[in-house]
Amino acid sequence: MQLSAFCGVSVDGFLARPDDGLDFLAVGEEAPHGFPEFLATVDVVVMGRRTFDVVRRLGHLPVYGGKPLVVLTRRPLAPPAAPGEPVETTAAEPPEIQRQLAARGLQHAYVDGGITIQRFLAAGCLDRMFITRVPVLIGAGVPLFGPLPGDIRLRHVATRSLGAGMVQSEYEILH
Amino acid sequence: MQLSAFCGVSVDGFLARPDDGLDFLAVGEEAPHGFPEFLATVDVVVMGRRTFDVVRRLGHLPVYGGKPLVVLTRRPLAPPAAPGEPVETTAAEPPEIQRQLAARGLQHAYVDGGITIQRFLAAGCLDRMFITRVPVLIGAGVPLFGPLPGDIRLRHVATRSLGAGMVQSEYEILH
Repeated sequence: MQLSAFCGVSVDGFLARPDDGLDFLAVGEEAPHGFPEFLATVDVVVMGRRTFDVVRRLGHLPVYGGKPLVVLTRRPLAPPAAPGEPVETTAAEPPEIQRQLAARGLQHAYVDGGITIQRFLAAGCLDRMFITRVPVLIGAGVPLFGPLPGDIRLRHVATRSLGAGMVQSEYEILH
Repeated sequence: MQLSAFCGVSVDGFLARPDDGLDFLAVGEEAPHGFPEFLATVDVVVMGRRTFDVVRRLGHLPVYGGKPLVVLTRRPLAPPAAPGEPVETTAAEPPEIQRQLAARGLQHAYVDGGITIQRFLAAGCLDRMFITRVPVLIGAGVPLFGPLPGDIRLRHVATRSLGAGMVQSEYEILH
């Protein structure tokens, strides 16, 4: 199975402000950035707990169109997922999560959240990244990237200039 | 006068490894990245002490073609600049450096080095950035960006894909 990240960051590499605020990304909200097309290729969403709590608080869970959503956490959700809500939790490590999803016949996971993306990258469990850089520097926040056990080589697939000064680059992660 | 940065970074935003190593940038050394054309528009180079020491140790000072070179440091250079060597030092703050260079009739400064770029950015003394992203994640090192007193909005001028998977973006810094 394939695991991909798709995210917007400031030019200095932050996914969110220190207080989880996403206002600085809004500069280009009207400009098409290919997210619906990307999401259409995804059959499961894997998300860190912090990102899940923000997305849920903002009422944005419907964005994922009812696809199964796996939240990485050791604590129960509050409120717990309602019956029928496609949310499950796991405390497994990335390779185990990847195995479990593949065993369910899932093909393409969307991995979201700073710590979660970093964990999957460091574990060699991420295949592709779509990074959209929004033209602002914010100086502090939740970083997209973090420490790694060693270099990770990327293959640049494509870069395109979107509206509102946004630049989207697609990279394949070489294992 | 105009102040510009022109630098290569890993996709996770590092100018150099923790030990100042630049090997990871070499992936695209053969691909043209516009540095000679940029340098031709520059009439003074402003550089942090750490960068200066690395560049000098590598024997790369001739790259700057004899343009005046201002090193930001509080300590004397070792060895001191030879008579006729176009190297001077300053311990002034970015706005004062900018005033002094303008008073000498200089038009375009090339600002280099992580801490130095960060100081000029934070002081509102940088006008333009050329950032070339090399397709590798290194996880740690000398970061291009650092803390800021507030958001800095950028205007995206252009992005081009260079050879070897490198992507160069040009931003104007909005004051």
